[in-house]
Amino acid sequence: MSIETTIGQMAKEAKQAADQMARCPAEKKNTALLRLAQLLEEKREFLQSENQKDLIFAREKGLSAAMIDRLILGDDVIVSMGKGLREVALMQDPVGTMGPTQIRPNGLQVAKMRIPLGVIGIIYESRPNVTVDAAGLCLKAGNSIILRGGGEALHSNQALSQCIGQALEESGLPMTAAQVVPVRDREAVKVLLKQEAYLDLIIPRGGEGLIRFVVEHSKVPVLKHYKGVCHLFVDESADLNHAIEISFNAKVQRPGVCNALETLLVHQAIASTFLPQMAKRFKDAKVQLRGCERTCEILPQTTPATEGDWGTEFLDLILAVKVVDDLDAAITHIGKYGSLHTEAIVTSNYTMARRFVREVDSSVVLVNASTRFNDGGQLGLGAEIGISTSKLHAFGPMGINELTTTKFVVFGEGQIRS
Amino acid sequence: MSIETTIGQMAKEAKQAADQMARCPAEKKNTALLRLAQLLEEKREFLQSENQKDLIFAREKGLSAAMIDRLILGDDVIVSMGKGLREVALMQDPVGTMGPTQIRPNGLQVAKMRIPLGVIGIIYESRPNVTVDAAGLCLKAGNSIILRGGGEALHSNQALSQCIGQALEESGLPMTAAQVVPVRDREAVKVLLKQEAYLDLIIPRGGEGLIRFVVEHSKVPVLKHYKGVCHLFVDESADLNHAIEISFNAKVQRPGVCNALETLLVHQAIASTFLPQMAKRFKDAKVQLRGCERTCEILPQTTPATEGDWGTEFLDLILAVKVVDDLDAAITHIGKYGSLHTEAIVTSNYTMARRFVREVDSSVVLVNASTRFNDGGQLGLGAEIGISTSKLHAFGPMGINELTTTKFVVFGEGQIRS
Repeated sequence: MSIETTIGQMAKEAKQAADQMARCPAEKKNTALLRLAQLLEEKREFLQSENQKDLIFAREKGLSAAMIDRLILGDDVIVSMGKGLREVALMQDPVGTMGPTQIRPNGLQVAKMRIPLGVIGIIYESRPNVTVDAAGLCLKAGNSIILRGGGEALHSNQALSQCIGQALEESGLPMTAAQVVPVRDREAVKVLLKQEAYLDLIIPRGGEGLIRFVVEHSKVPVLKHYKGVCHLFVDESADLNHAIEISFNAKVQRPGVCNALETLLVHQAIASTFLPQMAKRFKDAKVQLRGCERTCEILPQTTPATEGDWGTEFLDLILAVKVVDDLDAAITHIGKYGSLHTEAIVTSNYTMARRFVREVDSSVVLVNASTRFNDGGQLGLGAEIGISTSKLHAFGPMGINELTTTKFVVFGEGQIRS
Repeated sequence: MSIETTIGQMAKEAKQAADQMARCPAEKKNTALLRLAQLLEEKREFLQSENQKDLIFAREKGLSAAMIDRLILGDDVIVSMGKGLREVALMQDPVGTMGPTQIRPNGLQVAKMRIPLGVIGIIYESRPNVTVDAAGLCLKAGNSIILRGGGEALHSNQALSQCIGQALEESGLPMTAAQVVPVRDREAVKVLLKQEAYLDLIIPRGGEGLIRFVVEHSKVPVLKHYKGVCHLFVDESADLNHAIEISFNAKVQRPGVCNALETLLVHQAIASTFLPQMAKRFKDAKVQLRGCERTCEILPQTTPATEGDWGTEFLDLILAVKVVDDLDAAITHIGKYGSLHTEAIVTSNYTMARRFVREVDSSVVLVNASTRFNDGGQLGLGAEIGISTSKLHAFGPMGINELTTTKFVVFGEGQIRS
């Protein structure tokens, strides 16, 4: 069968399954998720032997140690997938819930009911745990899902897909509600992105290159973020202790993730006091600073920043530092170099806090807290499927609600329009 | 200047204006809208003389009477645009409003703040009132707007654009917050649809051909509906009087609009009682019926429906009628031929009402009320910018809130992530 036929058939079946999923009561979906958690543990040996095939192939292909590390379906990864599924099963089902009811002058009652989006395509790289995590969330929200992980994880993903299919079937749900694309060829991604007749949403997860590829080729709406160039502005009135702890946490706690700090902006009035203290703290953690001219005057040992450093997602223990005149200069810098992902201010000033929150254009804006809190779990959404820096539909971390939409429901007693 | 340069420059300026608009207090935006309402009346003669140029051109080109009718900027249209602007000015500004605040275990306060989408492109056909109506709503929601009406309305739209620009300028807002594309060539639409670096949303308004063209060529997210193939299901337990009044209103009150009824589904148990009464009422209004086999048995004078009649948006005094076995058959028919626009049931049965509301996949689902209520004003959203049958972001009528999105705001006292 050609790739077009294979994927077209999958998409069509996913759409049919979506109709069944949309009408499925919460209990049945939860049963499937809990059964899947069980199955992952029961079939651990099978999963790991299939995973071995991918690992052998990856080593032969000479993949980097970091990529191979992400590919491993270790005991810890299996335990963590199961734990995630059990948490999702416990979450309230959003499907069918209704918001406030409005009464119109003619007596019509109008409300919005939450419904699934339909068919969601997930395109990701080598982490096989995404297969289960994403399927769990999408199924809970009443959607069908088509999963296309990196070619190097194909055996692992197909093995996981078998478990998902079995859990669905045993729970009386259609196996086609979650399907893994059985093709290594990258052409498969292009074909999947053209299934606008069946797919309602594509979520790419991975590096900027993958995401740009998806956006470039997709006919289906895409929710994504390219990168997280997160800023922290230390205002003149900042509590210096907070400023040091928050910047340190934002940069150092997990430097390789999208909500880690990349550029520190410091109010000029506080720079000569704050920067030396901060630099001392960062030195112990081996953070390399790249400073603007004024920063380098205060901290002469600092590597001068180049124009390219502003707006760079280092994903490493590197931090760009800039002294700015005031809040306006900080907001302008963020507007020019930011990625609409996460920005924070440390301040004790009411007006500055309010202005920063209101005027900074970013999916998550924080006052006196670390950028690392841009995360579905941390912000109270439960498990997240990703973070969106596109404004349409969802802006910021996306949880289970963002995998649904609403329709209007109207209750009348014979009303007609005059 | 080439079309590419012209449109690229407009888009860039719109983006800059959007930053100013996003921070603009409600009062200033309302002042601009009210001033625009005034200006339209003050400049009526100028507007109508420019409109004359379009009308002469349209007649020379041999446009249909219906198209020329839509093109006329009569006194009534000018009054109605002004009235619309004054209503929008009175609406509550959604920008900056915040939803409920959640407290996290670590004390962080998390809320969502409503913010503008950014730059919105509107692509429409010959009605020049759309220029003012759409600009009013988009500006009120804090966005910039780029308007591209039909080439045959160019003089009218440019004249309206002058008024909009003057109202913005006199109110201290950037004139580039609302711009009309000054190019007749359809190539301009294609170029506008490629400005994904600056535009956040495209809303096409018009016939299915225009909308398919936009979806085909757009790199910017699109909210749209292709057509409204609205269904009404008369259940076994329906109050016959309601069923007749609602089906008559839905079909006849304004047959040329997207929320008018196109297919009537009738429960077999009630068909022989209901259909003759309904047919009598419809006959007086000169509605042509196209019936399924069972309908034609009950109403022998009826034209038999062809397969193509199901799923057709007649936009005329034509109604397809089908007798179905039960609710399941009705829902299946709607799933196969519907357009996710508007579907209604007439029933006295609690379970049937609940099942219809829950199981029918459509942007607006009504019980015992006319499909004609799928309208922003009727459902309490205020003026509407259009109706979306895409599920992402907005599904159903789109009012001012649908021209905004939300960002997360987080208030802390030094919290870091452990």
